[in-house]
Amino acid sequence: MKRYEALAELIAADIRNGTLPPGTKLPSVRKLRLQHQVSPSTIFEAYRRLEDRGLVRARERSGFFVLGTGTLLEPKTSMVLAQPAQVDISQLVFSILGAVQDRNVLPLGSAFPSPKLFPLPRLAKSLASSARYIDPWETVASLPPGHLALRQQIALRYLGMGMPQPPENIIITNGALEALNLCLAAVAQPGDLIAIESPGFYAALQAIERLKMKALEIPVHAKDGLDLDALEALLAQHPVKACWLMTSFQNPMGASMSEEKKQRLVAMLTQRQIPLIEDDVYGELYFGNRQPLPAKAFDQEGWVMHCSSFSKCLAPGYRIGWVSPGRFGKQIEQLKLMTTLSASVPAQVAIADYLQTGAYDKHLRKLRHTLESQLTLMNEAILRYFPAEVRVSRPQGGYFVWVEFPEGFDTLRLHREAVELGISIAPGPIFSASRQYHHCIRLNYGGNWDGYYDKALQQLGALIQLQLSGC
Amino acid sequence: MKRYEALAELIAADIRNGTLPPGTKLPSVRKLRLQHQVSPSTIFEAYRRLEDRGLVRARERSGFFVLGTGTLLEPKTSMVLAQPAQVDISQLVFSILGAVQDRNVLPLGSAFPSPKLFPLPRLAKSLASSARYIDPWETVASLPPGHLALRQQIALRYLGMGMPQPPENIIITNGALEALNLCLAAVAQPGDLIAIESPGFYAALQAIERLKMKALEIPVHAKDGLDLDALEALLAQHPVKACWLMTSFQNPMGASMSEEKKQRLVAMLTQRQIPLIEDDVYGELYFGNRQPLPAKAFDQEGWVMHCSSFSKCLAPGYRIGWVSPGRFGKQIEQLKLMTTLSASVPAQVAIADYLQTGAYDKHLRKLRHTLESQLTLMNEAILRYFPAEVRVSRPQGGYFVWVEFPEGFDTLRLHREAVELGISIAPGPIFSASRQYHHCIRLNYGGNWDGYYDKALQQLGALIQLQLSGC
Repeated sequence: MKRYEALAELIAADIRNGTLPPGTKLPSVRKLRLQHQVSPSTIFEAYRRLEDRGLVRARERSGFFVLGTGTLLEPKTSMVLAQPAQVDISQLVFSILGAVQDRNVLPLGSAFPSPKLFPLPRLAKSLASSARYIDPWETVASLPPGHLALRQQIALRYLGMGMPQPPENIIITNGALEALNLCLAAVAQPGDLIAIESPGFYAALQAIERLKMKALEIPVHAKDGLDLDALEALLAQHPVKACWLMTSFQNPMGASMSEEKKQRLVAMLTQRQIPLIEDDVYGELYFGNRQPLPAKAFDQEGWVMHCSSFSKCLAPGYRIGWVSPGRFGKQIEQLKLMTTLSASVPAQVAIADYLQTGAYDKHLRKLRHTLESQLTLMNEAILRYFPAEVRVSRPQGGYFVWVEFPEGFDTLRLHREAVELGISIAPGPIFSASRQYHHCIRLNYGGNWDGYYDKALQQLGALIQLQLSGC
Repeated sequence: MKRYEALAELIAADIRNGTLPPGTKLPSVRKLRLQHQVSPSTIFEAYRRLEDRGLVRARERSGFFVLGTGTLLEPKTSMVLAQPAQVDISQLVFSILGAVQDRNVLPLGSAFPSPKLFPLPRLAKSLASSARYIDPWETVASLPPGHLALRQQIALRYLGMGMPQPPENIIITNGALEALNLCLAAVAQPGDLIAIESPGFYAALQAIERLKMKALEIPVHAKDGLDLDALEALLAQHPVKACWLMTSFQNPMGASMSEEKKQRLVAMLTQRQIPLIEDDVYGELYFGNRQPLPAKAFDQEGWVMHCSSFSKCLAPGYRIGWVSPGRFGKQIEQLKLMTTLSASVPAQVAIADYLQTGAYDKHLRKLRHTLESQLTLMNEAILRYFPAEVRVSRPQGGYFVWVEFPEGFDTLRLHREAVELGISIAPGPIFSASRQYHHCIRLNYGGNWDGYYDKALQQLGALIQLQLSGC
């Protein structure tokens, strides 16, 4: 990393953790020169970079200021402990997510970033050029575990993170969603108890409901992710068959566990021989200076199934994901063969071709900066339009914030009112088996940000004010 | 249809049903002229066409002869009635099909035709040209039920068969295999009893095993498919929750039910409100003069889920299939959203583009003729190399023959010995929940037929002789 990049990252970290709150003037060049022993040009480069990332703004003749006009409180969302339970959430999820499929609805409730943030034309070139060379035999050769060149490229990315996973251990799937569902079916049976995050990704709830298993909710904190002490206590009380967790930039809170916590998590589960289904689809979308290691990096004995995909970073409609399945590879591969046979060959070949060009990392850098600067815009709009008592999570990556209103606030009502205005949101209850978090919502700042976003957040703020004032 | 085509088809039907056995000389031009009131040139055109199709051969100065050198007996395979049972067949299927994934093994046991029979370069052109115009919004718009232009093209094909299914009723899936599995999960629960064909497609057995349901085997006859009387008797005795059947060119026998039988089947099931999962992936591969109507064509009340795909006729690696789901659309669509979200967008768009060019029907005509002439080659080789006591089914479409050896013959042994020689076959027991048909095999004549095929069938014949002679 260049010196100005390192310096920019130091300052960005202070902005993210609140040490430099919105509105603060950045230190003078003279002060930083003395403090960090760097040249004035390095400091200017670092500031320009922070400006490019949308974190600070230069004001004429007065220096650089942190964007935003106030301080957002962090959520103190806490979970009410619930007994292991059958899950019955699917119909609520479908009724709420239906709104996102309307092109005219502003997708603050969507689970995807805008496809316009992806290099679709470049990817189409890979699709077109590689299509001509697909060996007819590929249709057989790409049966699970999947297209070899693609598995090799994925293995190289693991290697780059310092956590080698050999290509022969990787199974290509129809997006991470299929990988996660296959993992669950491979390690648990109807009636089994699955530990999940609360609030957590609704697809985990739907999978547990579909497979007639039971859910045990473990609390997640906005700041540092899963509550490991709570998990340990609950594991002592209940016969948990598997865990399904998102360890980095968690959906819906945006929270992450530290690498130390991930290591402790793996040790805790390995000791009890409990499989971990790790959903890491947002791992590449970090705002810090390197990708956080997933729990899989600490897995010595193969109890962690690491699932990810290209759907959130590169090629949403291609439906290509994968799992590095630890000791459960054979079961997962056979389940895949029995249910969907293989992933689409042209999509596999095109993504392998694209990765081979080396363009992916450059694209990811740009995407991360776009998302980080849109997070700033989202926070500014929330500060401007939402009442002062709302609390907002401070994600270090991904594209979700978790917004908490005062207790008693009804976000299902807010959802209905927002849809009337052509705006979708994701209300809290869809993220909990016991339908908690009625006063919380998930907002997506990864959309195609334009004037409509500001307007929509203004309208949403007005609806919130209205409900809070008792109307 | 032109007059010479109609005449050719009349004669082809006589060849297929054995009225004109192999070696027979075709009637003279003079006789046919009188009989059918057609011109000599029409008769010559018809004979040339039959020659192109590989059904007859001209011998210099002596006329046209039906290919083959003897008469193959039809199988009399009969099923031993079995009680409803838990299924435990998956591991046997996997161990046997593993051999097909080796490029150096001659795939007589494969479930797919050779990908070289497909217009892959033309399809790659559609992929390349349509990739450039994929609207980023497609990644959202192509969520289930799927890409609209593709559903419209599929609806047009239904319309062409005289059985309209509107595009909004069609759900795109990852191949027919996913469609079938989703249908089963949509209409039945663990413990439920599912009526299936015997012998029948092993994927149905694997799905029933995976979902912890029970199988009730219904006999299928090589000549006319499912035994409806047996089905009716068994429905009276057992609480069947759903049927999973392949009504045309059935896998593994190649047998078809007549349209009258399909109509009776639908009436029987509708009266009892039992859903029918109809697997029709080989329907387009008919050798007659039109595609046989599926059972779905007679479904007035929505109890039939009609599943098909492009994997067996056009684009095996693309993984695009569909279901016209009758009254079960909503459940199936939601299960799809929960497990694999959507089918690959580039593959959907490319196939829609290809179908819009109108090239599909021309390709299918060529493919059918290739398969029909390869069936003749397969029959000739069996007559030449296999002992006289083997019996072989006479499919009217598709690319499978069912070969029956004398009782007591061990095809699992034959499979092991064949694999040693680099040849795969599909032994009978993988087609039955109760592991019957030890003396039968399924052979695939849809491979890339070349000198190796003849050699392989000769080697297989030698192994069969060896076992029959008690060695």
